[in-house]
Amino acid sequence: MGRAPVRIGMVGLGRMGKRHADNLARRVDGAELVAGCSPIDDETAWAREVLGVGASYRELAELLRHPGLDAVVLATPAIVHVDQIVSALEAGKHVFCEKPLALDLADCLRVEEAAARHPDKIVMVGFVRRFDPSYRDAYRHIEAGGIGRPFLVRSQTGDQLDPSGFFVRFAPTSGGIFLDCSIHDIDLARWFLGNPRPRRVFATGVVAVHHDLTAVGDVDNGVAVVEFAEGRLACLYASRTLAHGHDTHTEIIGTAGSLMVGQNPRRNRVEIADAHGVRNLCVADFYERFKEAFLLEIQEFVDCVRAGTPPPLTLRDATEATRIGLALAEGQRSGRVVELAELGG
Amino acid sequence: MGRAPVRIGMVGLGRMGKRHADNLARRVDGAELVAGCSPIDDETAWAREVLGVGASYRELAELLRHPGLDAVVLATPAIVHVDQIVSALEAGKHVFCEKPLALDLADCLRVEEAAARHPDKIVMVGFVRRFDPSYRDAYRHIEAGGIGRPFLVRSQTGDQLDPSGFFVRFAPTSGGIFLDCSIHDIDLARWFLGNPRPRRVFATGVVAVHHDLTAVGDVDNGVAVVEFAEGRLACLYASRTLAHGHDTHTEIIGTAGSLMVGQNPRRNRVEIADAHGVRNLCVADFYERFKEAFLLEIQEFVDCVRAGTPPPLTLRDATEATRIGLALAEGQRSGRVVELAELGG
Amino acid sequence: MGRAPVRIGMVGLGRMGKRHADNLARRVDGAELVAGCSPIDDETAWAREVLGVGASYRELAELLRHPGLDAVVLATPAIVHVDQIVSALEAGKHVFCEKPLALDLADCLRVEEAAARHPDKIVMVGFVRRFDPSYRDAYRHIEAGGIGRPFLVRSQTGDQLDPSGFFVRFAPTSGGIFLDCSIHDIDLARWFLGNPRPRRVFATGVVAVHHDLTAVGDVDNGVAVVEFAEGRLACLYASRTLAHGHDTHTEIIGTAGSLMVGQNPRRNRVEIADAHGVRNLCVADFYERFKEAFLLEIQEFVDCVRAGTPPPLTLRDATEATRIGLALAEGQRSGRVVELAELGG
Amino acid sequence: MGRAPVRIGMVGLGRMGKRHADNLARRVDGAELVAGCSPIDDETAWAREVLGVGASYRELAELLRHPGLDAVVLATPAIVHVDQIVSALEAGKHVFCEKPLALDLADCLRVEEAAARHPDKIVMVGFVRRFDPSYRDAYRHIEAGGIGRPFLVRSQTGDQLDPSGFFVRFAPTSGGIFLDCSIHDIDLARWFLGNPRPRRVFATGVVAVHHDLTAVGDVDNGVAVVEFAEGRLACLYASRTLAHGHDTHTEIIGTAGSLMVGQNPRRNRVEIADAHGVRNLCVADFYERFKEAFLLEIQEFVDCVRAGTPPPLTLRDATEATRIGLALAEGQRSGRVVELAELGG
Repeated sequence: MGRAPVRIGMVGLGRMGKRHADNLARRVDGAELVAGCSPIDDETAWAREVLGVGASYRELAELLRHPGLDAVVLATPAIVHVDQIVSALEAGKHVFCEKPLALDLADCLRVEEAAARHPDKIVMVGFVRRFDPSYRDAYRHIEAGGIGRPFLVRSQTGDQLDPSGFFVRFAPTSGGIFLDCSIHDIDLARWFLGNPRPRRVFATGVVAVHHDLTAVGDVDNGVAVVEFAEGRLACLYASRTLAHGHDTHTEIIGTAGSLMVGQNPRRNRVEIADAHGVRNLCVADFYERFKEAFLLEIQEFVDCVRAGTPPPLTLRDATEATRIGLALAEGQRSGRVVELAELGG
Repeated sequence: MGRAPVRIGMVGLGRMGKRHADNLARRVDGAELVAGCSPIDDETAWAREVLGVGASYRELAELLRHPGLDAVVLATPAIVHVDQIVSALEAGKHVFCEKPLALDLADCLRVEEAAARHPDKIVMVGFVRRFDPSYRDAYRHIEAGGIGRPFLVRSQTGDQLDPSGFFVRFAPTSGGIFLDCSIHDIDLARWFLGNPRPRRVFATGVVAVHHDLTAVGDVDNGVAVVEFAEGRLACLYASRTLAHGHDTHTEIIGTAGSLMVGQNPRRNRVEIADAHGVRNLCVADFYERFKEAFLLEIQEFVDCVRAGTPPPLTLRDATEATRIGLALAEGQRSGRVVELAELGG
Repeated sequence: MGRAPVRIGMVGLGRMGKRHADNLARRVDGAELVAGCSPIDDETAWAREVLGVGASYRELAELLRHPGLDAVVLATPAIVHVDQIVSALEAGKHVFCEKPLALDLADCLRVEEAAARHPDKIVMVGFVRRFDPSYRDAYRHIEAGGIGRPFLVRSQTGDQLDPSGFFVRFAPTSGGIFLDCSIHDIDLARWFLGNPRPRRVFATGVVAVHHDLTAVGDVDNGVAVVEFAEGRLACLYASRTLAHGHDTHTEIIGTAGSLMVGQNPRRNRVEIADAHGVRNLCVADFYERFKEAFLLEIQEFVDCVRAGTPPPLTLRDATEATRIGLALAEGQRSGRVVELAELGG
Repeated sequence: MGRAPVRIGMVGLGRMGKRHADNLARRVDGAELVAGCSPIDDETAWAREVLGVGASYRELAELLRHPGLDAVVLATPAIVHVDQIVSALEAGKHVFCEKPLALDLADCLRVEEAAARHPDKIVMVGFVRRFDPSYRDAYRHIEAGGIGRPFLVRSQTGDQLDPSGFFVRFAPTSGGIFLDCSIHDIDLARWFLGNPRPRRVFATGVVAVHHDLTAVGDVDNGVAVVEFAEGRLACLYASRTLAHGHDTHTEIIGTAGSLMVGQNPRRNRVEIADAHGVRNLCVADFYERFKEAFLLEIQEFVDCVRAGTPPPLTLRDATEATRIGLALAEGQRSGRVVELAELGG
C-alpha cells in the first residue's frame, strides 16, 4: 500500500477487546496496534506479552496522548461509549466503537454533533453483520435486482441458552433484549430496505426460562414489528434460550424473490448420519458465526482511515437503529404501539 | 370393518369440491359418495360421469331428503356455510365443512348452538394441516416432550404470485388476508401451544404487488402477532406474492428445542445441480402441498362418523380461530392493538 | 372408465403380498381383488377377513382355475417366480411379478420365450423405483434435456442395520447383495442412460458387521462399477449396515448438470433443532420410502391390462438387469473384471 | 511465541505461488517471506512491489544461498519437485512442496532417501484438505468413535467445466485425472481409514466433453475402487466437467454412522428462493473452497519448523498416495485390475 500504517490504541481488553486486538496485531493490513488501554492490569499485560503491544494505559485520557496515535477502537461498556468517542474526536483521533452506540437518543445526537465538528475524522459503529460475506453477497444480489423490490425483512438474533444465566446479571444495564440483540436486525432491515423512514413499532415478549428477568422488566424472547414508510416492514425475533446454538438469520422478501441468510446455522461443512438422523452441528455463539466479519469490519475501518474515505455505515445509521430500538423497548414495556415521531431524533 | 359405509352427499363441486368428491368416491375407506349437489349442471354431470355418483341435486334442501343419506361435505362459498350446516344438522346429518366456518363471530356461535342441539351429530371444520403427516409428527414430538414447553409459534401461509390477480376479485368477500390465509396458522398455533387463551393482537400489512387491493382495505402481505395468556405467542405471516411457489411453514419453539415443518417447500426428492446452483423446485399451490392431508382429513371424518367418536378438532376450535382472525382483520384495518375481550365470544 | 375391472388373484401373502393385496383391494382404480393364494391358511384368512377377498387357494394351479380371473400378482420367493409366471401365462393370465425375476439367466430367457408365445398377455416385473414420483420427475427432467447428455449414474441401496441379522438367514438364497439390492440401481442406470449395452463390470465388497456372511461368500457392503458402451458408466453401492435409516439415492450426471434423487432420506417435512444440532429423521425401510411408488406401480399394471397397452418396462429390462447383476455377483466372487459377453443372454 | 520467525523463500510465483506468498507475507504467524524465486521477472517484481519482499532470484540455486534462509515453499511444476526438494534439503532448508510430490514412484523414494539423510529438516507435501476445518472436524468425530469403525470412503474431486478446455493443454504432463485430482481423495481415504495397506485397484473413465483428451489417453470423468487390507475400501470419482461449480466432497462410512463433508458445495450462507426454486450458489474452484485450509496448512508447516516437531503428514503419506494414484492410472490405461504389489514401493 505504501502509506504509513494506522497507529491504533485498543480501549477495553475484555472478551471482545482481546479479539479486536488480536486481529489488529496480526491480521489487519495497514494497522499497527501501538497501545492497549484497560483499568485491569492483567488485560494490558496480555496485550504486551501475547501480542507484543508496546504501550499500556489505564485511562483513555492517557492513551489519547500517546505519541503518533491515529485512532482508537472502543470495546468498552456501552455506558461510556459516548464520552469516550467525544474525547477521542476532540483529541483528533478516528474512532471505531462497538455497538451499541448508546442507550439514549440524546447521547447519539451528542456524538453526531461532535463528529460534525471533526469532519475529517472517521467514526464507525460496529454493525458487524454488514461485513459478513454472506450478508454482503445478499446485499449485492438485491442491488442487482435479483428479488425485485424488497419490502419485508424478517430477522432474528438467537443466542444459545446459557443455563448459568450469565447474561441476566447484565440485563439491568443492557437496555433490554431489543436494544441488546435486535439492534443488529434493525440495522440490517434498514440496510436491505434502503433506509426507509420508520413510522410505528409494536413489540412484545415472554420470559420462557430466565424468570429473574421479570423483575427488571426484560424478557428472554421478544418479537416485534416495525412499520416503515412506503409499504415496508420488518418482523424481528430475539431469543436468549435456543437449544441448538447461536441462530441468527435473516430473510429479505421482494416482489420477485427472496433471500435467506444463515437459515441453518451450520458449524461447518460436515453432516452426520447416525441414530439421531441426518444432522449438522451449529455455531455456538455470535463470535463463531461472525468471526470473519469482525476481521473484515475492522479492516474496512483501517482502509477508510488510510484512504480518507467515509465508512460504509454512518453515525446516522447508528442513531436510527438506536431510535427504533428505543421505540421497541418502550413498546414492550408499555404494551402500546409506539409512533417513532414520539421519540424525536 | 363390517359396518355399513357412510353415505355422503357432496355439496359444492368446484375445484375443492371435485377433489373431495374424487377422494370420497375412490380412496376413503368406509365412505359411499351417493349424491352430488351443485347449482351448476356441468359439475353434477362430472360427478355422475367420471365418478359414477348416482344422484344429482341443485339444492341442499333436496339433497337432505336423499334416502339414507348420513352426512354432507360442504365445499361451498363461506357465506353460506352457517345456514347449510344448520340445515344439515336439523335434517339429522353429520357435517364436514371446508374452512372458514364463518366470517362473523355470531355465525360461529349460531353453529355451535345448533350442534349443541344435535349432540349425536358430528360437525368438523377442515383445518387440513392438522392431518398432514409432518404436522402430526411434529405434534407427537412435542407431546412427547421433545422440545420442552412450547411457547412461540411462527407460521406462515404463502401463495405463489398469480400475475393474473385472480384472487383479487374475491378479496372483497374473503374477509381479508388474515381470515383467508392466516386462519390456518392461528389454528396451528392454538394446537401446538395447548389452546391458550388469546389476549391481544397486532396486525399490519402492505400491498406489494396487487395494488387493486388498496380499494378494499386488504393487503397482499400481512404480519401479525398474537399474545396468549401464560407467556405464549404467535407470530404470523401471510403472502399472496411469493416467487418460488406455495410456501407454508411453521416453527414451534420450546424451552428445550424447536421444530420446523415445511421450511423448504420442496416439490419432491429431486435436487438439481446446474448453472443455477444446487436447487429444488417447490410445490406450486396448497393442494400440491396438502394433497395427502386432504385425504387423511376426510378419512378421519368418516371414521369418526362410523365409530361415533368426537372428531379431533371441535367447533370451538373453529370459533376460536375465527375470533382471533377477526381480531387480526380489525387490527390491520384500525392500526390498533386489539384486545380479544372486545370481540366477545 | 366404463370398462370392467381387472379381476386379480394375489399370490403370496407375506409382508409384501399383504401390501399389494391391501392396495389392490382398496386403492387401485379398476382392480378387483377376487382371490388370495398362499399355502399358509392364516394369510388367506387375513385377506378374507380384513380385505373381504372372496376366494382362497393354497396352490397357484387352483387359483388359475378361478372363474373369470384376469391376472395374478406374484409376491412369492424368487426361486418359484419363473415357473409361476410360465404357468400363469399358459393359463392365459396377465402377470405382475415382484423383483427379482430370477437368479439365473436361462430362467429369464425361459420367461421371455413364454411371454413371446402369449403376446396378448402383459408380464411386468416390479422395478418399483421407476414409479416413484421423484425418480419419474428426474427422468422427465433428463428427457427434456435438463442435464445435457447423461453419462454417469451413481446409485446406492442402503438398508438400516438390523442387529438381529434377520436377512443373514436368507443370504444363501438371495443371490448375494448385488442381485438382491443393486438390481434396482442397475435398472435405474439402464433407464436413465438410455439402455446402453453393458460391456464389463468390476465388483467388490467387505463384511463390516455381519460376519456370518463370510461363510456364504456374501458381503454386507458392496461397491461396483459397470462400463457400458458409448462412454457411459454406473457406479453402485449397496449396504446392509446403515445407522440412520434406509438410504437409497441416485445421482445422474450429464454434460450440462446433474440430478440427485433422495440424497437425504428425510422421513417427512419436519426438522428438529435441539442439542443434537439441526436434523431430520430418516425413513426406516424401503417400504416407507417407496410406499407411494408401490401403489403407482400396480396401478400402472392394471391400467395397462385394461388398456391393452404394453407396460413401461419390459421383460427384456428385467433380463438385462439380472444379467448385469449376475456379472457383479461373479465379479465379487472371483475378484476379476467380468466381461458381459461371457455370460451370454 | 518469542522465537525468531522462519525466513522463507517462495519458489514459483504463478497462480498458486502468489497465493502462498500473500499468505506468508501477511497472515502466517511466525513467518517472514524474505525472497521470491521465479524465472519470470514480472512475478518476482509483483512480490517485491505488492508484498514488499526484499530479494528476488531467478534460480533456486541462488535462492538457497540467500543469507539466513530457513525454508522454501515450492509451487513449481510437478516435474521439477523432486530435484528441487533434494537440492533444498542438501542446502539445509526445510521444504514445503505443493502436491503432487512426483509422478513416478522412484522419484518419491529418492526424496524419502534425501529426507532420511536430513532428519532434522522438515519436508511436508501439500495435501491441503487435511487442514480444512470441516475435514479436521470429521477426523476428530471419527477418532472419538462417532461412527464406529470406518470401512468405506467415497470421495470425489469435481471441477467446474471450463469450456475453454484450458486444462486439456496440461493433460499430457499432468499424469492423468487420477494422479492430478484423485490424489487428494486417496490421501483422505488413507487418513480416515487409518493408513491401511492398499491391495488392488480398478479404474475406468469416459471422455464426456473434452474429446481432445482421447489422444493422450486421459479421460474427463473417472471412477475408481481401491481395496485395502482388512476389509476397507475407497470409491473415487473425479470430474472436469461439472456444471454447478467445484464440487469436492467425501463420505466416510462406519459401522455406527457416517459423515459427509462438503456434500453441497455452497458458496456461503445465502439461499435464494425465486423462479428457479430454492437454491444456493456453489464455490467456483478449489481455491474458493479451500482458501482457509491453504492458510492453515502453511501455518502448520511454519509452526512445525519453529517447534522442531514432525509435520502431521509425512513423506511416506505422499509416496503412498502417489503409489495408489499410479496404480489407478495404470488401471485406467490397461483396463486391468492392478495389484499394488506390481508397483513396488
